[in-house]
Amino acid sequence: MRTNPMPLDGVRALVFDVFGTVVDWRGGVAREAAPFLARHGSSADPALFADAWRRRYQPAMEEVRSGRRPFTRLDVLHRENLDAVLPDFGIDPAGLPAAELDELNLAWHRLDPWPDAVAGLARLKARYIIAPLSNGNIVLMIDMARRAGLPWDAILGAEVARAYKPAPEAYLRTAEILAMRPEEVCLVAAHNGDLAAARRCGLRTAFVPRPAEHGPGQATDLAPEEEWNVVAEDFGALAARLGL
Amino acid sequence: MRTNPMPLDGVRALVFDVFGTVVDWRGGVAREAAPFLARHGSSADPALFADAWRRRYQPAMEEVRSGRRPFTRLDVLHRENLDAVLPDFGIDPAGLPAAELDELNLAWHRLDPWPDAVAGLARLKARYIIAPLSNGNIVLMIDMARRAGLPWDAILGAEVARAYKPAPEAYLRTAEILAMRPEEVCLVAAHNGDLAAARRCGLRTAFVPRPAEHGPGQATDLAPEEEWNVVAEDFGALAARLGL
Repeated sequence: MRTNPMPLDGVRALVFDVFGTVVDWRGGVAREAAPFLARHGSSADPALFADAWRRRYQPAMEEVRSGRRPFTRLDVLHRENLDAVLPDFGIDPAGLPAAELDELNLAWHRLDPWPDAVAGLARLKARYIIAPLSNGNIVLMIDMARRAGLPWDAILGAEVARAYKPAPEAYLRTAEILAMRPEEVCLVAAHNGDLAAARRCGLRTAFVPRPAEHGPGQATDLAPEEEWNVVAEDFGALAARLGL
Repeated sequence: MRTNPMPLDGVRALVFDVFGTVVDWRGGVAREAAPFLARHGSSADPALFADAWRRRYQPAMEEVRSGRRPFTRLDVLHRENLDAVLPDFGIDPAGLPAAELDELNLAWHRLDPWPDAVAGLARLKARYIIAPLSNGNIVLMIDMARRAGLPWDAILGAEVARAYKPAPEAYLRTAEILAMRPEEVCLVAAHNGDLAAARRCGLRTAFVPRPAEHGPGQATDLAPEEEWNVVAEDFGALAARLGL
């Protein structure tokens, strides 16, 4: 008999938050936005532009979660949010070719993984089914994975579940698709709120803090706010904690 | 100007029929069924058992396609079909533990790829997004891919589209999820009927015959029945034909 059981005993799939947890969205969007902003005469800090674009993310999804809008994939919401945020940076999107804005919108498909992510996922995949459970849509996740080498077994998440986190359906339908009980699925995330919502649905929880997600001034999600099933400082440490 | 353009010019994603095209369902189900049949006193040829189980596949999906039944994933249909076919082999499923039948049902998750499939997919993946567009459900495709080493970029298909091929929605929603026009997506399949349905939706078509799918007596799908965009004898030849 084991006196010190592995955490996540009985878990068969690890599903991952992606923006912030697997990839650095702020740095990636800033990198892609920098030449665009310079070309159009803005001297704004591209990282602050990334922050401003991202601030419109939750309100846009809330329109869907509330039922005021049918399910609409994130690429479309990002594109609308881009039109909405550009005037705050002195740029009129109506004066630009749609193709140039569509191209900038693909910044979200080209985010770099945190340095530990690819190797950590490969280790975790040896025992667990691994898949994103992201609000990002399927083709966004495909493009990101191909560019970054993320070795997912499948692309799950909002577009497959037709529900945006933290709505319970996003977690419960994902477990149902995997033909698993919720407690056989563990969410890995850098965000306490996401983990809390997953736990309310019966999923297991692993917290991996990403203290640089929001840049040098980050004040949120620096530490676990509940007793999550596992806490690890990066994906390598998570694999080690799970005996992999 | 190229005088001999590559076939599939403008295509960005290859989506694959799986049962028969990528994997040998008949051989795999027979291999898994053999000890089960022997254990329960049947001397039937396990390949004929596989054929009989498979014959109930299209009628079960037709209940969904016709709208008489809400979308139900293939694992559930396979399990119902197993209960239905066993009496024809002298076995009463009501007399067996459900767990034993559930386990046999997973035979469909453990099918071997045709010998050229894994290497061919890896070559094709260098240029194209590759994904199954199968009537098999997501976790079935995940289990199969992990066991066989199929390097999919994502799992698409009936459960994601909520429609069974050859319903048009299965093809059209898959293109829509990929954010591609139908002509930017090519279906690779060993079945003329599947390709014809995809073509009617505007997808491009690649025929790879699998003359052993139905065993030594196969009489169908031995040759192309329309001028498909590409015809290749296996996935390696397909990659070569596409300059990969």
